[in-house]
Amino acid sequence: MEKIEDKNRQQEEEQVVNPWEVSAKEGGKIDYDKLIDKFGCQRLDQSFVDRVQRLTCRPPHVFLRRGIFFAHRDFNDILDAYERGEKFYLYTGRGPSSEALHLGHLIPFMFTKYLQDAFKVPLVIQLTDDEKCMWKNLSVEESQRLARENAKDIIACGFDISKTFIFSDFDYVGGAFYKNMVKVAKCVTYNKVVGIFGFTGEDHIGKVSFPPVQAVPSFPSSFPHLFSGKDNLRCLIPCAIDQDPYFRMTRDVAPRIGYHKPALIESLFFPALQGETGKMSASDPNSAIYVTDSAKDIKHKVNKHAFTGGQESIEKHRQYGANLEVDIPIKYLNFFLEDDAELEHIKKEYGAGRMLTGEVKKRLTEVLTELVERHRRARAAVTDEMVDAFMAVRPLPNMFD
Amino acid sequence: MEKIEDKNRQQEEEQVVNPWEVSAKEGGKIDYDKLIDKFGCQRLDQSFVDRVQRLTCRPPHVFLRRGIFFAHRDFNDILDAYERGEKFYLYTGRGPSSEALHLGHLIPFMFTKYLQDAFKVPLVIQLTDDEKCMWKNLSVEESQRLARENAKDIIACGFDISKTFIFSDFDYVGGAFYKNMVKVAKCVTYNKVVGIFGFTGEDHIGKVSFPPVQAVPSFPSSFPHLFSGKDNLRCLIPCAIDQDPYFRMTRDVAPRIGYHKPALIESLFFPALQGETGKMSASDPNSAIYVTDSAKDIKHKVNKHAFTGGQESIEKHRQYGANLEVDIPIKYLNFFLEDDAELEHIKKEYGAGRMLTGEVKKRLTEVLTELVERHRRARAAVTDEMVDAFMAVRPLPNMFD
Repeated sequence: MEKIEDKNRQQEEEQVVNPWEVSAKEGGKIDYDKLIDKFGCQRLDQSFVDRVQRLTCRPPHVFLRRGIFFAHRDFNDILDAYERGEKFYLYTGRGPSSEALHLGHLIPFMFTKYLQDAFKVPLVIQLTDDEKCMWKNLSVEESQRLARENAKDIIACGFDISKTFIFSDFDYVGGAFYKNMVKVAKCVTYNKVVGIFGFTGEDHIGKVSFPPVQAVPSFPSSFPHLFSGKDNLRCLIPCAIDQDPYFRMTRDVAPRIGYHKPALIESLFFPALQGETGKMSASDPNSAIYVTDSAKDIKHKVNKHAFTGGQESIEKHRQYGANLEVDIPIKYLNFFLEDDAELEHIKKEYGAGRMLTGEVKKRLTEVLTELVERHRRARAAVTDEMVDAFMAVRPLPNMFD
Repeated sequence: MEKIEDKNRQQEEEQVVNPWEVSAKEGGKIDYDKLIDKFGCQRLDQSFVDRVQRLTCRPPHVFLRRGIFFAHRDFNDILDAYERGEKFYLYTGRGPSSEALHLGHLIPFMFTKYLQDAFKVPLVIQLTDDEKCMWKNLSVEESQRLARENAKDIIACGFDISKTFIFSDFDYVGGAFYKNMVKVAKCVTYNKVVGIFGFTGEDHIGKVSFPPVQAVPSFPSSFPHLFSGKDNLRCLIPCAIDQDPYFRMTRDVAPRIGYHKPALIESLFFPALQGETGKMSASDPNSAIYVTDSAKDIKHKVNKHAFTGGQESIEKHRQYGANLEVDIPIKYLNFFLEDDAELEHIKKEYGAGRMLTGEVKKRLTEVLTELVERHRRARAAVTDEMVDAFMAVRPLPNMFD
């Protein structure tokens, strides 16, 4: 049933973006302008980048200045409040469905770490082990094990333990959090979630029950040990744009139950090695670079699987140059090569045909290997005790310092 | 939408019995044989009554020997296991939608107290404040307040604190309980709950999410502080038969997630004063005797509102006698007049026209006044500290003694 409906939807609308599926129209790539229109969020323009730089007194993150976080909802309200001296908190998360994260999974966490450092604000990170238990048919135990494994990768991104609370739904749902789940659930009809998420009658009721679980970390009262008496604290959610449906629902409900609407800052998808037609696929290991890949794996994947815009012969390449619009090495460098001048140089030379695909791939391999090696070293230093410490239900007395 | 569907169902099937509505076909009364057929439970015959008496070495409760608990599912398995020396636990509950309980609300608790004493087994009592918050549109705080008020009435029924754990969903949902909710939810499709409960697309998703909450107290692992390492413990649920749909669903799911199916022992509905066409209505205070009613209230309600089978004139009554089949005073005495001989005497004399309606009503008023006065004295002795003690999340080391 679900497959047929998805297919119909795909044929009608050409591209499908929801929390479980991201696919461009056939042979094309994701049309982000269309997505912004459809979802009803706003484009994050240069004025925001400048304003963030001014307010935080530091250069904007590469993901911000290169438009990788490209859309938002009410980010201006967050910045207005911040400018008035009000703090906010950050909320992001991950569905722990696989042992090893790929680079796409790291994007929101790398960016969230920057936001935490730049604005000096607390952060809650939700590990939706309940979601993955239900959607991927994992056992409760396996979902919780993956959540802890993924927590190590998240911690390795460098979050400040004095400002960060990581929680697993299976461990944390209850109390004030559960009360907010009920308050949200009361405000959303079944027809509404069908409209937003496309559930069918053959889907199990766990799926129907889940959206409030992802919604309520947007409300400070869900975390009494952190935000007691701070019901007016605003929430900013950095995430990939496929998560927008959850928060559209959350923002609908929020004012009806006495809370601020959470603000969002949303990213493009990190493209698959095979080309920018969707997100990377967890089921095809050659579609992505994993944080567990060796230098050799990375070199092999980039050389063998990265879709390029280079021409089919050196002669033609010298003549026409590379098509940067579809070139995956360039797109990956756009995410991870921090040096703006070098990136511009590569794009210019490669686009003009003076630089060959092999050279660009070599540079990308270096950049990715360094990133992955750095992550691996950081992750190896994350002990079980550190995971326990980040996940301890505790107050964070210095979270606004 | 819901109203229309209910109406359709009613026209087709003549009587409607679900957790939110009990109504007989127009002008008639609930057909319990039909209900047993439709639900697929079994009639509780005399052999069960005899067996319970033999196993517990005490006279069977009046509700058992008079067929007020009239249906069951797998009660024989519970008794077989008990005979082998295995214990079980009891699970019952209440949706705290109103401040004052009426006599119908007390039935399952009075019977459960008898079962606890007779079999010497532990008991969990679920207060579904989350359900009432969602169905009755009460605030979280008001639902929780009502839950505590109702807990006092429940405790006043005389439960043994060393064997009884009372919990509010808003306080207790989480941890192992939530994990079981997710396991159940994974096994039940939306179409299935629509079939069982008749939800519509305009119902909010809180309703769709709730059935697993009522299901999981049937599984011992939902209470790790009580039943750790006792995953094989059987569960017996005493309840009115309108709750059967929840446990039909639970029994479907149980073996798929590694648990015993809970057994059930199910009661008739306590009829309204106006006659046996359904359950009493919380919205019409004259349809029921409340535990807060004064002696004067009771006298007035019985005399003024109780539907009787007496004849319209004394002469006719002497000639034809009362119709006991529809007579509410007789039905109420059948529930609450413990002396079998006296009840038989009244039925005989009243049925033959030698006893008048006024005399029967007078006796009923005495019986109910004594019951209500006894309950009121017991409830007045229940302190907030006792409520806290019954609701404390704690082990019960002597629960099987």
